[in-house]
Amino acid sequence: MKVALFGAGRIGKVHAASIKADPRSDLVAVTDVMAEAAERLAEVHGIAVRSPEEILADPSIDAILIASSTNTHADLIEKGVAAKKAIFCEKPIDLSLERALKVREIAAASSRPVMIGFNRRFDPNFAGLKAALDAGEVGTGEMLAVTSYDPAPPPVAYIKVSGGLYRDMMIHDFDMCAFLFGMPKTVMAHGSCLVDPAIGEAGDVDTAVVVLTYADGRLATIRNSRRAAFGYDQRVELLGSDGMLEARNEIENTLVKSTAAGVSSAKPLFFFLERYMRAYQIEWSAFVDAVVDGKPVPASAEDGVNALALAEAANLSLREGRPVELAQVMAEA
Amino acid sequence: MKVALFGAGRIGKVHAASIKADPRSDLVAVTDVMAEAAERLAEVHGIAVRSPEEILADPSIDAILIASSTNTHADLIEKGVAAKKAIFCEKPIDLSLERALKVREIAAASSRPVMIGFNRRFDPNFAGLKAALDAGEVGTGEMLAVTSYDPAPPPVAYIKVSGGLYRDMMIHDFDMCAFLFGMPKTVMAHGSCLVDPAIGEAGDVDTAVVVLTYADGRLATIRNSRRAAFGYDQRVELLGSDGMLEARNEIENTLVKSTAAGVSSAKPLFFFLERYMRAYQIEWSAFVDAVVDGKPVPASAEDGVNALALAEAANLSLREGRPVELAQVMAEA
Amino acid sequence: MKVALFGAGRIGKVHAASIKADPRSDLVAVTDVMAEAAERLAEVHGIAVRSPEEILADPSIDAILIASSTNTHADLIEKGVAAKKAIFCEKPIDLSLERALKVREIAAASSRPVMIGFNRRFDPNFAGLKAALDAGEVGTGEMLAVTSYDPAPPPVAYIKVSGGLYRDMMIHDFDMCAFLFGMPKTVMAHGSCLVDPAIGEAGDVDTAVVVLTYADGRLATIRNSRRAAFGYDQRVELLGSDGMLEARNEIENTLVKSTAAGVSSAKPLFFFLERYMRAYQIEWSAFVDAVVDGKPVPASAEDGVNALALAEAANLSLREGRPVELAQVMAEA
Amino acid sequence: MKVALFGAGRIGKVHAASIKADPRSDLVAVTDVMAEAAERLAEVHGIAVRSPEEILADPSIDAILIASSTNTHADLIEKGVAAKKAIFCEKPIDLSLERALKVREIAAASSRPVMIGFNRRFDPNFAGLKAALDAGEVGTGEMLAVTSYDPAPPPVAYIKVSGGLYRDMMIHDFDMCAFLFGMPKTVMAHGSCLVDPAIGEAGDVDTAVVVLTYADGRLATIRNSRRAAFGYDQRVELLGSDGMLEARNEIENTLVKSTAAGVSSAKPLFFFLERYMRAYQIEWSAFVDAVVDGKPVPASAEDGVNALALAEAANLSLREGRPVELAQVMAEA
Repeated sequence: MKVALFGAGRIGKVHAASIKADPRSDLVAVTDVMAEAAERLAEVHGIAVRSPEEILADPSIDAILIASSTNTHADLIEKGVAAKKAIFCEKPIDLSLERALKVREIAAASSRPVMIGFNRRFDPNFAGLKAALDAGEVGTGEMLAVTSYDPAPPPVAYIKVSGGLYRDMMIHDFDMCAFLFGMPKTVMAHGSCLVDPAIGEAGDVDTAVVVLTYADGRLATIRNSRRAAFGYDQRVELLGSDGMLEARNEIENTLVKSTAAGVSSAKPLFFFLERYMRAYQIEWSAFVDAVVDGKPVPASAEDGVNALALAEAANLSLREGRPVELAQVMAEA
Repeated sequence: MKVALFGAGRIGKVHAASIKADPRSDLVAVTDVMAEAAERLAEVHGIAVRSPEEILADPSIDAILIASSTNTHADLIEKGVAAKKAIFCEKPIDLSLERALKVREIAAASSRPVMIGFNRRFDPNFAGLKAALDAGEVGTGEMLAVTSYDPAPPPVAYIKVSGGLYRDMMIHDFDMCAFLFGMPKTVMAHGSCLVDPAIGEAGDVDTAVVVLTYADGRLATIRNSRRAAFGYDQRVELLGSDGMLEARNEIENTLVKSTAAGVSSAKPLFFFLERYMRAYQIEWSAFVDAVVDGKPVPASAEDGVNALALAEAANLSLREGRPVELAQVMAEA
Repeated sequence: MKVALFGAGRIGKVHAASIKADPRSDLVAVTDVMAEAAERLAEVHGIAVRSPEEILADPSIDAILIASSTNTHADLIEKGVAAKKAIFCEKPIDLSLERALKVREIAAASSRPVMIGFNRRFDPNFAGLKAALDAGEVGTGEMLAVTSYDPAPPPVAYIKVSGGLYRDMMIHDFDMCAFLFGMPKTVMAHGSCLVDPAIGEAGDVDTAVVVLTYADGRLATIRNSRRAAFGYDQRVELLGSDGMLEARNEIENTLVKSTAAGVSSAKPLFFFLERYMRAYQIEWSAFVDAVVDGKPVPASAEDGVNALALAEAANLSLREGRPVELAQVMAEA
Repeated sequence: MKVALFGAGRIGKVHAASIKADPRSDLVAVTDVMAEAAERLAEVHGIAVRSPEEILADPSIDAILIASSTNTHADLIEKGVAAKKAIFCEKPIDLSLERALKVREIAAASSRPVMIGFNRRFDPNFAGLKAALDAGEVGTGEMLAVTSYDPAPPPVAYIKVSGGLYRDMMIHDFDMCAFLFGMPKTVMAHGSCLVDPAIGEAGDVDTAVVVLTYADGRLATIRNSRRAAFGYDQRVELLGSDGMLEARNEIENTLVKSTAAGVSSAKPLFFFLERYMRAYQIEWSAFVDAVVDGKPVPASAEDGVNALALAEAANLSLREGRPVELAQVMAEA
């Protein structure tokens, strides 16, 4: 299975390594608006730099991996579907729910797999939690709590084009809730600017709590902060009728030091590249499974739309200071 | 310091033991509408059963400990203040905020200490968390998360007279938030009946999430369930600008068993009597400190009113499906 | 059941509290060569100071608790047996194995219970480990490892009269091995002076490893240090054919702090009074069970002799630099 | 840097992946007495199968990695040195201490790096423990305890050619002690056959404790079992004058499940391939550092001899039932 990569940035490099690590997939080309970045990645992997048009037109290329900037995603998915490529696209589909809905339709009509990169579904801890939930190990799920803190806020320049915390950062947590609990009925968002005043000046929040309520009474809580002094905090906790499941942080090492000052141990793995390295590899293999073996895509364009709809509802809820029905957001999109 | 006890039930017995454990306080009398319960407790401790009137009229009695049913609290505080007794009263002051506000005024005017039994403030784990927060060990507090699950729901008969989950159970968590973060600006309540349909038929919820938003942008989340299959879950987690503080559960023992089936360890201490036994003793000693040494009361009638106002706001929020300003609740009370 | 206490020192006070905490036992008298200490304890508990002779002669006194200095233990047990008292005696029976053997015979001939204070058998963690082992939860025991570090060395004056590390400190760990694994075939002792040179000058070691080998091939390892900067370290680990059991330390509180510097948590409970407070109470109740209900004594004079024999073998092994057969030590005593 | 691999078995495959993962090293050839195994590995990596003689004679090959069976190690090191190759050889150098000493001399005289594969030195947990010790974070080291249990015993056929538990399995732990504490003065070995009687019939033990005593009084304890029902148990614990360092197990995932039955979590990573995967990669990079950058070899032929001498001493100690001076073993070799 021959793969071309769109985007040679940080996440593109991660995916390039995953493509090479799976013996069933072969990285054959890369493209990037930053010619230099494309050249460097091409050199490392001994592949060609080609234009998007060449890639899409080349029938020997089975699949494209879209890791370019968010504003190119929808367009590339549409073109990729038209070119009959299997498509793996980084989240989000688009910052606009309307646009994402159109992409979803196009993807649904495609004969080839279209997968959205919700990497956390493939983290062995979260995947294990879902497996235990589905196996009924703690009975019926009742309350879900997702904690997701970044080590430090990104530059304000990034914040300004990010689409805001709910669409940029919490989108992963919305997907986690959808992954574990399905789609809720209402969304209530709270948010503040406590970390960096410049983020507030840019019209965004950096500290946020969202509560999702489900039609059957289940409740999910998401907490986000753009800053955790101790690193990347990524936990899920689920209360069921027969017990509780927790997926805790992975830590840097297992050293424990006991002195007169107390007992100290290692911090969580620093950031997403460290924490989700295995998840990225498993994620890619799952895509290859879909392309090669015809297995169902484990994170579809519909999942991409769902997460975006939750983010949209959160934005509206924050703006209006009230719970927002998801149905309203979908109806208006 | 001579003490008389109102109420010889489960919590009355706990307090009787605490009174005896502090060498500065002496339990001299007990009263209870259930004559038999009073007799039994009196016999165990070698003290007299007396009527409320006799106790209040006896000038040799310095302090009264009110552990009778909730509907007697306000009345007994008022009578105790009139009789110039130092007063320790179990939470809540009353189920009615209006009534509690009047009690607060009367307590404020008293020359003697009036303390409300928010026992969790004295739990060494939570008290340690507050001390670390106050010492700036994690910078400025930003997000607070209180988890509080009971092992199993009480009988519906109890639910019906309890005042509802927010006033009966979450009242402790409201106080914990006030203890750590002070009073919020708004309250948003979510609640469902997932544990026992009879609780829903009685008009109450058994599964609840409340979000408190503070004027300065801090956020607090409380999660309650009337049922945790693994026991009493009592945790606090606080994200600050420089790190995170957690107070985890105390567990039954430190045994760890590793077998082919996995690694297993002990459950949390079963319920409040086990988990907060030390807290009850420290709490009582703090009251004695206030009475004997003139130290400030660490949980005042004002604290009792504050927790009740938060519960009242939560009830209104749940009813109307919107965030409620605390100022509105106070203004209407 | 009326009890008289021999010894009003630190451990005597602990036992006095335990006697009072069990409603079936009544502390009625205390004696101590330090008259002042006896007076103080008597005052606290509202009891009489009496001479050893008076106590032993008083037929209304059912039991004596011997918490006086080690060199008085054997003598008091013999006199107590002669006076038909039930006897609870702190470990060790005596520093001399010969003498202890004679005491064992006398105790065996007594119609009343004679119990030795191996408090760790009653620690809920270690007792739980034994229960799990006996229940076959990890199959057959194969290797045992006992870790036992004190927070800081005692004064050298104490070391000089202590009988040495093996008889004074490791005696508890020898008993723990006997409790869990029974009596070994050989003892190999290693020891050094690394903590305080004055201990070495006094002819003792402060850092020690002992290996016990059992006739059936099981192996037990004991590690002792007179100093652990982080406090009192008291752990047991047992490998069985089907898994492993660990009894870990109890810690001061459940606070966890995560900052840029790492993740820190509380130290173990400081020393034996903190760690074994519950064990002392359970231990006393077990003695009362034996006296009042005729239950078997859970730590007999024979257990006291066994632990001492292991210490004696360790001393010989260290002196001669070779494994010592326990049978040799017993034959020579 | 061009590398040829001797041995295409399980560990050879691991090393092949490490060679490819480091961009500075290039795997160019493989050889194995099992032609089929060599072919398969060659195919996977797109390299040539060549004879040992061809490899040694090819001046374009910079380094050889010896992962063939133990009885070939010494011979191949000698031939590799003669051919002026940089050499990475799996442990042990040889089962005979005499032979290993000769290899050490030859290696010492070589102008190229010779490294022995003590992979655990490169495990981030153990390496971190050493770094903390060297940085004085717990003062001076006093007692060391190495726990090392395999999940299940190997077939008896393997046991028979393994050289016995001390040279085959505990060799890693001897090296860990040497790595952290240097070389001891005496070795005292205990061992039993508790896991599989066939192992005993083959003249070996499967359960073992060894105590190392150091000239300055430090003590080290090693515990080995061929079977731990819960998996691969690999821990190090070090008591220093100012505290304790522990390197705990790495576990399969961070899931925690709390139910009425207790709290359960994941087992340790299953076996050495899982636990030490990162260590193997870091180890290889350290060898490349030595070859390319001239950095000192972090595990030399001398280290290989040292570990073997400790194993030899343990064998003698077990046989004669007494502590053995290391100097005696070295003198007799």
